[in-house]
Amino acid sequence: MQYTINSIAIVKSPYTQKFGIPRQPQLVSAARICLVFNADIGPDCVRGLADFDYIWVQFLFHGVLDEGWAPMVRPPRLGGKKKMGVFATRSPHRPNHLGLSLLKLEEINIEKGCVRIWCSGADLLDGTPVFDIKPYIPFIEAHPEAASGFATEPPPQLTVNWLPESHMHDLSPDLRNLIEQSLAQDPRPAYQNDPERVYVMDIASHSISFCIQDETVWVMTVHPVQAA
Amino acid sequence: MQYTINSIAIVKSPYTQKFGIPRQPQLVSAARICLVFNADIGPDCVRGLADFDYIWVQFLFHGVLDEGWAPMVRPPRLGGKKKMGVFATRSPHRPNHLGLSLLKLEEINIEKGCVRIWCSGADLLDGTPVFDIKPYIPFIEAHPEAASGFATEPPPQLTVNWLPESHMHDLSPDLRNLIEQSLAQDPRPAYQNDPERVYVMDIASHSISFCIQDETVWVMTVHPVQAA
Repeated sequence: MQYTINSIAIVKSPYTQKFGIPRQPQLVSAARICLVFNADIGPDCVRGLADFDYIWVQFLFHGVLDEGWAPMVRPPRLGGKKKMGVFATRSPHRPNHLGLSLLKLEEINIEKGCVRIWCSGADLLDGTPVFDIKPYIPFIEAHPEAASGFATEPPPQLTVNWLPESHMHDLSPDLRNLIEQSLAQDPRPAYQNDPERVYVMDIASHSISFCIQDETVWVMTVHPVQAA
Repeated sequence: MQYTINSIAIVKSPYTQKFGIPRQPQLVSAARICLVFNADIGPDCVRGLADFDYIWVQFLFHGVLDEGWAPMVRPPRLGGKKKMGVFATRSPHRPNHLGLSLLKLEEINIEKGCVRIWCSGADLLDGTPVFDIKPYIPFIEAHPEAASGFATEPPPQLTVNWLPESHMHDLSPDLRNLIEQSLAQDPRPAYQNDPERVYVMDIASHSISFCIQDETVWVMTVHPVQAA
């Protein structure tokens, strides 16, 4: 059976390309996004929501629609070597491409009747269509002891070092923090380990070049980029 | 923006009418449902899922589609007296009518290539279209200390007593348990408190009549009903 759903909000995110987006929410606390709601979703709709610490965001993995889905995928967590059923993972390459992220609710902003919600710890691509948000209810949804297969703890973090030519001191502390936390997640495809390779990642209107040797990221350059 | 999504599974549930469905998952552990997957969702899709205790089920509140949505709703938890923004609640009367339930994964059954997943603690209507399932990841999703507005603890339970004419001993222990747990949730609309009123609830192909006086449910009769 087919159903039609409508986006109720669009995500404004510092992540404007897929490469470099954290693979789970809450790994990069500095990743702040804004949900910009449609005009027909008025301030009444979010009354009482500010009393919750976290919200569920149900969204579309719109950046991978043309890649379809696969019954089995290779989770980065398993080094890209082992296949798992897509429903045993949070891979975007799933039927309907529906995403679900638990984000920290930072601020609800109402201006001229327009609702904007700021969240941190985000793992969402800029322009992501949002279908629903819901409050997080810990007495139902917090099960710290639950078995969780291969996803039992946060992934290991890399150390991030800035080379002199990166001019890190020209950057705002917030941007530095966002870049460091994002790179520490190891954005490389799981099977790549080439210490000579220079990667380029766009984040918060900046283009960052870096390489990764052993467990250390070396930030080479940071340049502002023009918004498209 | 409009998007098309397809159901990947249909719910077989003992709850064949909206009245009496638990208002949250996990309140009625005896409520077992089966997700019956489409033929194109093969056994590979769920490989590895059995190692998780809980799964997220993203579904459509198909029983209220014709009732639309409202910017503000009256959560039963607040006695039906106070209005809250729909996004501060888990009300089905929301834009897109998307639901999200965390269910206990009981069994994955593969027969002749057809995938069936049994879950307990369900709050889903029979025939519910399912759009996605996902593993529960506690290191990301378990926040027992999170603030959660008006929804801070399980609702109070009623005591359930069986009148002699209910012939409770003719029922299987499983069915008795399901009826008791469901009635203990107080299925009445929040604003109703009429000790004379006889309610009728259909559950697991049985029709149950009962009344509620103070904090006690009196089960009057239980009759098998013919499936439609």
